[in-house]
Amino acid sequence: MGERLPVDVQRSPFAVLKGVEISSVRIFGFLGDYLERADRVTLATMYDLLEKTGRMDNLRFASGKKKGSFQGFRFNDTDVHKWAEAVSFLLATKANEKLRQALKFAIQEIKAAQDDDGYIDSYYPKDKKSERWTDLGWSHEMYCAGHLIQAAIANKRLTGEDTLFEVARRFADHIDSVFGPNKRPELDGHPEVEMALVELYRETGDSRYLKLADYFVRARGKGYASSSKYPGITPEYFVDHKPFVELDELAGHAVRMLYLCCGAADVYLETGAKDLWKALERLWNDLVQKKMHITGGCGSRSEWEAFGKEYELPNKRAYTETCAAIASFMWNYRMFLATADGKYVDTMEQVLYNGLLSGISLDGRHYFYDNPLESDGTHRRKEWFECACCPPNIARLITSLPGYIYSLAKDESKVFVNFYEESKADFNTRFGHLRITMETDYPWSEEVRIHFDRCDPTEEISVFLRIPGWTEDFSVRLNGESVHVKPKNGYVELRRIWKTGDSVDLSFSMPVELVRSHPFVEENRGRAAVKRGPVVYCAEAADNNFEVRALRVNYEQPELETKYGNIDALGAVTSIHGKGFAYDMDYWKGKLYVPVSKIEADKPVEFTLIPYCLWANRDAGPMVVWIRLV
Amino acid sequence: MGERLPVDVQRSPFAVLKGVEISSVRIFGFLGDYLERADRVTLATMYDLLEKTGRMDNLRFASGKKKGSFQGFRFNDTDVHKWAEAVSFLLATKANEKLRQALKFAIQEIKAAQDDDGYIDSYYPKDKKSERWTDLGWSHEMYCAGHLIQAAIANKRLTGEDTLFEVARRFADHIDSVFGPNKRPELDGHPEVEMALVELYRETGDSRYLKLADYFVRARGKGYASSSKYPGITPEYFVDHKPFVELDELAGHAVRMLYLCCGAADVYLETGAKDLWKALERLWNDLVQKKMHITGGCGSRSEWEAFGKEYELPNKRAYTETCAAIASFMWNYRMFLATADGKYVDTMEQVLYNGLLSGISLDGRHYFYDNPLESDGTHRRKEWFECACCPPNIARLITSLPGYIYSLAKDESKVFVNFYEESKADFNTRFGHLRITMETDYPWSEEVRIHFDRCDPTEEISVFLRIPGWTEDFSVRLNGESVHVKPKNGYVELRRIWKTGDSVDLSFSMPVELVRSHPFVEENRGRAAVKRGPVVYCAEAADNNFEVRALRVNYEQPELETKYGNIDALGAVTSIHGKGFAYDMDYWKGKLYVPVSKIEADKPVEFTLIPYCLWANRDAGPMVVWIRLV
Repeated sequence: MGERLPVDVQRSPFAVLKGVEISSVRIFGFLGDYLERADRVTLATMYDLLEKTGRMDNLRFASGKKKGSFQGFRFNDTDVHKWAEAVSFLLATKANEKLRQALKFAIQEIKAAQDDDGYIDSYYPKDKKSERWTDLGWSHEMYCAGHLIQAAIANKRLTGEDTLFEVARRFADHIDSVFGPNKRPELDGHPEVEMALVELYRETGDSRYLKLADYFVRARGKGYASSSKYPGITPEYFVDHKPFVELDELAGHAVRMLYLCCGAADVYLETGAKDLWKALERLWNDLVQKKMHITGGCGSRSEWEAFGKEYELPNKRAYTETCAAIASFMWNYRMFLATADGKYVDTMEQVLYNGLLSGISLDGRHYFYDNPLESDGTHRRKEWFECACCPPNIARLITSLPGYIYSLAKDESKVFVNFYEESKADFNTRFGHLRITMETDYPWSEEVRIHFDRCDPTEEISVFLRIPGWTEDFSVRLNGESVHVKPKNGYVELRRIWKTGDSVDLSFSMPVELVRSHPFVEENRGRAAVKRGPVVYCAEAADNNFEVRALRVNYEQPELETKYGNIDALGAVTSIHGKGFAYDMDYWKGKLYVPVSKIEADKPVEFTLIPYCLWANRDAGPMVVWIRLV
Repeated sequence: MGERLPVDVQRSPFAVLKGVEISSVRIFGFLGDYLERADRVTLATMYDLLEKTGRMDNLRFASGKKKGSFQGFRFNDTDVHKWAEAVSFLLATKANEKLRQALKFAIQEIKAAQDDDGYIDSYYPKDKKSERWTDLGWSHEMYCAGHLIQAAIANKRLTGEDTLFEVARRFADHIDSVFGPNKRPELDGHPEVEMALVELYRETGDSRYLKLADYFVRARGKGYASSSKYPGITPEYFVDHKPFVELDELAGHAVRMLYLCCGAADVYLETGAKDLWKALERLWNDLVQKKMHITGGCGSRSEWEAFGKEYELPNKRAYTETCAAIASFMWNYRMFLATADGKYVDTMEQVLYNGLLSGISLDGRHYFYDNPLESDGTHRRKEWFECACCPPNIARLITSLPGYIYSLAKDESKVFVNFYEESKADFNTRFGHLRITMETDYPWSEEVRIHFDRCDPTEEISVFLRIPGWTEDFSVRLNGESVHVKPKNGYVELRRIWKTGDSVDLSFSMPVELVRSHPFVEENRGRAAVKRGPVVYCAEAADNNFEVRALRVNYEQPELETKYGNIDALGAVTSIHGKGFAYDMDYWKGKLYVPVSKIEADKPVEFTLIPYCLWANRDAGPMVVWIRLV
């Protein structure tokens, strides 16, 4: 029924856009490299870790296939589910027989762990039946259900097979039989099931799932998730301090908060509930105006993995969990589907190219859980975590990336080009077939050529090209001739009867910019970040023979030059080079405060900046994003 | 036996200095004003609060004088004890009959709450006897004992009366009968009793108390305070993660950590244990080189009231609890007694005039618990706290201040002038009697005249004048004639047979200085603090008609002028005035990141800076210490 997409809103009444199937788009550029590594390294090594760390065994213990008892965190099943979802997305564009077999095998292991009544969670096997649903704040049972449902839907959409889907659906039915209005009113401590239930509604048409999702979104803030059973933990942590529609700022555990926003947006896309939309807009403004790091990361506090207060955006201490970046990306996508407003894609882009992809190494098998904007050199990616939510989450995001490049108007009369990436797309619209090649070295290059390799439509179609919010200047040429168009909501419209052989050349001004933050961000006062296009840069020790945290750039004449080419292990990227100054750290030894009149001047240095998302792929050393101006 | 001092080291073998009794010194200057308010307002209003909030009733419930059960935090007795200690110090210099009566009355209430076996803690009255000493991590029973002992010693030294002292001594004996080597090995979760036990040893000569203190200092780090009974709380919180002598940095709960340093220093002063001293020096260097805010405050994290990592010195989020500032002052004093090194008094001064006295309002009855270096205007002093450790702590510190102005060498052949304050001192040395008047408007004025009103000695005595670490230049005149002396360990020595009528004029250069912090302090990179002499300044909304957090000073030509005179409710102080720039905050509305090329320039403003410790005494508004340079 559904398309090969994580979010299939083709029949959602309040979506103005819908996706183009993952399987219709092949990516080969900067993003494509991540997908290629997922295919070659990430997902295979991850399956080994699921085995090695007992995640698969937990399922076997529950099904009785193996003797033993649950090990690890209660939500460890989700690592398997997210991996299964990631592989399902991957197989839409990559023929990986090994992973296909591994997935099939894993699905059998999951299925076997299901109880007769539909319940499935390996932490609560049959002999712990009486404990099920007794500790909802911490149990993550519905959180696990949500990830299972999402994996199952992805799998069904890919293969058409129902095996995993029926497991998930039976569990959803079980949950629906227990919870909701006039049933048990409680909620899971960790939102996630809401968006899964809406997607299940989209896949099945069964409105029970939508109703239950709507209930779960709206019933928060009444203490159902954060009851007196959890002393010492604030209701904010569970995002249970206020009803969703009354929230006026992002608060509490960042991933919980943002997954709830995803769920609320999904419910809105189906119901059009204005109160949800108002809250979503309010919270989105809070995000981009007060609580988002320049890397797109959010959730600044490691304490309780939480949002800080407004303008609380520390760098070294920034938590900015990879999962929170992913959640923000997913939420912004839903907001975009509801509006076709490019400001949401701007945010997706800011997150993706910076604080999201920083979550995985270039070897495809090391991960950041938290993504700080400054380091003394001790922060390094790890192979795995005891709480391993981030690795399979970034895997499923990466393998679904082809699905975000294009969107279509619901009536298919408009094609939106959201992300610029070397790619080939091949899809039908009701106006005819389109085969498009995008040639670009984005984000390093400011040039994009969109070539219509095949074009059947005999009616006018509008192609909407995204003009990123960060560009000052851009030019569009259609078949070599300049077109003067003004962007509206972040897109320019080219409307015509497209023909095979047509091409559009797009060029953005992409100067290196020093960026400052709002004066209330105390950590950045007197500092600037360097950005080019969507990419935030950093100074890392590997490229600079001085202490990068002591670097100063000249505010008036920064003299910054770009260079495109290989940088060590980073491959071909655009790096930024300039002349600045840095303190001799020997001078500062043992000193904490020194009067300006006595400070030894800093000395001229030549520095190199690299894209933030690529740091920590070489020898360990300090890193800084926000550079001192004086 | 002991002198009227909080720390009486006259017979301590490893002290090179000793104090001059509180009752021998009258202070009338900047510090004297705080003492005067303590006499007039603070201690009377505080007693009312002890009654109103049930602190006194808790004791009555325990003694059976009143029916009811304990209310509030388990350590609420200490508020009474600290108040009793504060009043005892006060009565050494102020004849306050009302407070004398209130103290007498309070002592009776405390005494009545003591159990037959010497145990006293109103949270664990007779009917809870079985629960005593069962929850040492959280119970604060020995913490309460420590404050009781300190109050009792102060009271005995003041009045010569034994009433409270015998109560405390019996409790100490009880503790000694239960805990220690070959007895129960456990420890209190909150250090405090260590320094009290050493002082009790000093007062009684009974070495059992010293041995027990030594045991408590050394037995930490073995899990005795942070057993498995406290899941989710790190051993660091209880400063129980490593033996004291192995600590290489300040960590965990700041007040716990620093009280332990006080206790360890006290043990060192008696035993000369080199391993303790080495650890103390290591930790002291960690404090002043990596973990102290420019205000002298420390303990930067509100989470667990803890020390942060090195160079983690945020401003708005700075916790810098008043009690931690007091603890640092007390620790530095002990280090000074052991060495006569002025660097410790420099630190005491930095703490005292900034992040310590900021803890109390100019009306003498409102308190900061945490003392941030930046505020959006919502941080205000309060009349009281549920956890009210800070108000009575700052009261006892203020009323003991006269005891810190002077020190004497153990053989009384040297007089150390530590703090410059309008004052009169009158004390005996074994070389004869001294009556000294200090005339100064310090810290506003850089001039100090020390006049020997009466001088009996017939032998040479050295007067050591502290030359603060912050001054570049100073001059000393003896009876009007310049004396050329070089400071050593922060003091200059004037040695002669002093005669009645002699006077010393001391002058320090006290320019306004812009100060920068170590480049690794990320919040302050590109910012400077303004300091004059020991006083750190801030920009507060009350004096400035622009957003102070958006203020910029010109790094090259700061053009800062001082003005001495009345500022509203602050009284006569030296304020600092200059021309700078500030953003129009309307421009920033809704913006979080803006390229430098597009930012609207900030506009010229004239600004006023006031001493940090005096902020928040007028209308609520933003405040900033570290000012943007670009």
